[in-house]
Amino acid sequence: MSFFPASLETLIDKFASLPGIGRKSAQRLAFHVLSLPEEEALAFADAITDAKKSVHCCRICQNLTEGDVCAICASDRRDKSTICVVSEPRDVLSIERGREYNGTYHVLHGVLSPMNHIGPDDIRIKELLVRAAEDEVEEVIMATNPDTEGEATAMYISRLLKPFQIKVTRLAYGIPVGSNLEFADDATLNRAIEGRTEM
Amino acid sequence: MSFFPASLETLIDKFASLPGIGRKSAQRLAFHVLSLPEEEALAFADAITDAKKSVHCCRICQNLTEGDVCAICASDRRDKSTICVVSEPRDVLSIERGREYNGTYHVLHGVLSPMNHIGPDDIRIKELLVRAAEDEVEEVIMATNPDTEGEATAMYISRLLKPFQIKVTRLAYGIPVGSNLEFADDATLNRAIEGRTEM
Repeated sequence: MSFFPASLETLIDKFASLPGIGRKSAQRLAFHVLSLPEEEALAFADAITDAKKSVHCCRICQNLTEGDVCAICASDRRDKSTICVVSEPRDVLSIERGREYNGTYHVLHGVLSPMNHIGPDDIRIKELLVRAAEDEVEEVIMATNPDTEGEATAMYISRLLKPFQIKVTRLAYGIPVGSNLEFADDATLNRAIEGRTEM
Repeated sequence: MSFFPASLETLIDKFASLPGIGRKSAQRLAFHVLSLPEEEALAFADAITDAKKSVHCCRICQNLTEGDVCAICASDRRDKSTICVVSEPRDVLSIERGREYNGTYHVLHGVLSPMNHIGPDDIRIKELLVRAAEDEVEEVIMATNPDTEGEATAMYISRLLKPFQIKVTRLAYGIPVGSNLEFADDATLNRAIEGRTEM
């Protein structure tokens, strides 16, 4: 039995359908929205509608944008000969935060995952091959996550890129800067030793 | 510098303004909403608008409802002579889940909190006094939280109700059912001993 008005139940259901939000949190969020002044609550609703209607994928790199082409692809300060391949739009943000990388991106919107029935046609690999074929690309950096699926995806794409005679690289593995050897796991330490560099 | 389209940034800001949602979670939620099919995303926005527009407080008990009077106040199966005073609408749900209480409620929408500048006029105490004066109320159960502010609020209201010659009671303190004495804190154990009942 439900003790809340129907429209409140609907709102709780919507919040509960978001990732990482349980029933209790959803209730708290819904109560919070109801307690907002009317204009703020409606602004929240509008933000969802606006974002959904105006945000789509960049024609070139598939990152999220409101225009036809994203700011990075449109910028003539960025080095168009290097493409960094990431799985999600948020990964672009992570790399941009470092302020070192000056090339362009390609967002796959997922990784290959046979367990979840996600194959090569379900992520934006085709669009990457088109760029590799047409543009003056010299290097593709595979920056998918260092987990099984990210590895497999990087490996798969690097094979597809072979015929284009493009240099394909992978992010370096090793111990994180500022961390402690004591807490590094075996796999990471082994990779750090394998990948050791001369000082 | 922002790397997301403006409307996406706005949506992330909105999510980040919710209680318990940090910047990273807000990003994840916003990306999730963008990944939904258009109709589902718009249904989310509509749920906010609908709930905000149609939910308001019950004329009698101040609980959230879509009608003039809530289902509990409108029911003739509920005992109108007992009022259970709670601080938030979600507390009504907690007590209703027990399926034992058959009286009505009064939702204060807050507790007295001098630290946060919340005084008697900021919560729905006046409405409770009106009910005490007009209706055939025999007992008021103070069911605010067992913390300092909840205690103070219960104490304050019980004094205001004195002149109405109504029985005012407080929820029992004690060890939670199914718990372990070992983990009960001192204050709870002392209260449990003070409030011991004959077997």
